[in-house]
Amino acid sequence: MSKAKYVTGLRAVEQLLSQRAAEIVKLYAEYQTANPRLEAVIAQAKDRGIEIQSANRARLQQISGEARHQGIVAEIRRSQTLDEASLRDLVEKALADETPLLLLILDGIEDPHNLGACLRTADAAGVDAVVVPRHGAAGLGPTVSKVAAGAAESIPFAVVANTGRVLGWLQDYGVTVFGTSDAAGKTLYECDLTASVAFVMGREHSGLRKQIAEKCDHLVSLPMQGGVSSLNVSVATGVCLYEAVRQRQFSPVPDA
Amino acid sequence: MSKAKYVTGLRAVEQLLSQRAAEIVKLYAEYQTANPRLEAVIAQAKDRGIEIQSANRARLQQISGEARHQGIVAEIRRSQTLDEASLRDLVEKALADETPLLLLILDGIEDPHNLGACLRTADAAGVDAVVVPRHGAAGLGPTVSKVAAGAAESIPFAVVANTGRVLGWLQDYGVTVFGTSDAAGKTLYECDLTASVAFVMGREHSGLRKQIAEKCDHLVSLPMQGGVSSLNVSVATGVCLYEAVRQRQFSPVPDA
Repeated sequence: MSKAKYVTGLRAVEQLLSQRAAEIVKLYAEYQTANPRLEAVIAQAKDRGIEIQSANRARLQQISGEARHQGIVAEIRRSQTLDEASLRDLVEKALADETPLLLLILDGIEDPHNLGACLRTADAAGVDAVVVPRHGAAGLGPTVSKVAAGAAESIPFAVVANTGRVLGWLQDYGVTVFGTSDAAGKTLYECDLTASVAFVMGREHSGLRKQIAEKCDHLVSLPMQGGVSSLNVSVATGVCLYEAVRQRQFSPVPDA
Repeated sequence: MSKAKYVTGLRAVEQLLSQRAAEIVKLYAEYQTANPRLEAVIAQAKDRGIEIQSANRARLQQISGEARHQGIVAEIRRSQTLDEASLRDLVEKALADETPLLLLILDGIEDPHNLGACLRTADAAGVDAVVVPRHGAAGLGPTVSKVAAGAAESIPFAVVANTGRVLGWLQDYGVTVFGTSDAAGKTLYECDLTASVAFVMGREHSGLRKQIAEKCDHLVSLPMQGGVSSLNVSVATGVCLYEAVRQRQFSPVPDA
């Protein structure tokens, strides 16, 4: 689900470059034209270190949804994150479509590298939305954007005041909430993840807060074989989300 | 499989601190004693930023295997990495035990954070050995150790001159080599990973080298749903290794 936003056409992109260049994620440009104004835009973007991707006319139309693109489309950062009400709309819409949801709730990730890596992984696994608390956690920023490799601008990202409350209404909608905990007796591989699920990952080092763990429908662990006691949160996120992908696309857990 | 080494007793740890402090991973100390010499060692270690873990007498004996520990045990880095011959010994021994092998070959990871995260993940998934090329790749060091959270000192780590040659003799021993590639038509989830396998992960950004990809028995991809084109290498490593763990401990792929 791509939520990227685009600015299309020479004049709009010229304005964007001169006034709000920091919002540009990438330019898509038709290199084959001999339009000096377009060339000037490309040169200016190159000077600013903005990524430029070659695209033909048809591709530009496809990206922007507009035929009159004049050979240039800018992908811009999402201007705002979702609030709790918009998250609820997104969830309701997906459930109305009878699409099993896959949600990722990062309850207090502090390191922007970890947040970026989680967003990249969530995007790859087809997560519908990532939810983070407003306070005590890393938010979006340049480091997150860089590590997320584009996902920070495309994946729906909700910032909420109270994670526990969100878990409550998700459960009311029939979403099963799985918290990850080293101490859980049940492993990820014993759970059916084919219906709508939300994974809750705790803070680096300290893990899930007690009041959040208590709200989860199930606590699950990953089998740990070696001397280390846990995985990096982005790796654990990848293993959990991809197990959901596997069950949904390949085969569900036989006896779950 | 823990390969950590220990230095036990006040005098030995004092010497280690004054001469080879960089080799210390962690100190285990009995805090409850009123021995000023022990307190001095602890204070010196704290000054150097060395992690100190409290442990009672019985635990210290268990860790060090010695009763005369004087309240202090230092865990030190493994003094050397495996060479190709020792790696072959390790593989032969495991196969003689009829244990299915799980090997991780990192063919050119450049970022020490990524190498450290891969080692941590490999240790957690019970990998028998990690193999890296001697040239053009990150080696062990303080950043790797820190990110690996102890795994850099415990997991067998082989540095080899020629990755392709290692793949060749692994195949001669009956190990199936899986290369990961975004372009592969088959996904990870369609492969039987219950017999001895080696996963080969390519370099960040550029992926597997052509000559290495050609040597693999199978090239496999992970399903990518969103806008990003690949996962971080440590996340991809986690997803691959944990699919092997899942198949071995829980259920193999039905139709593989």
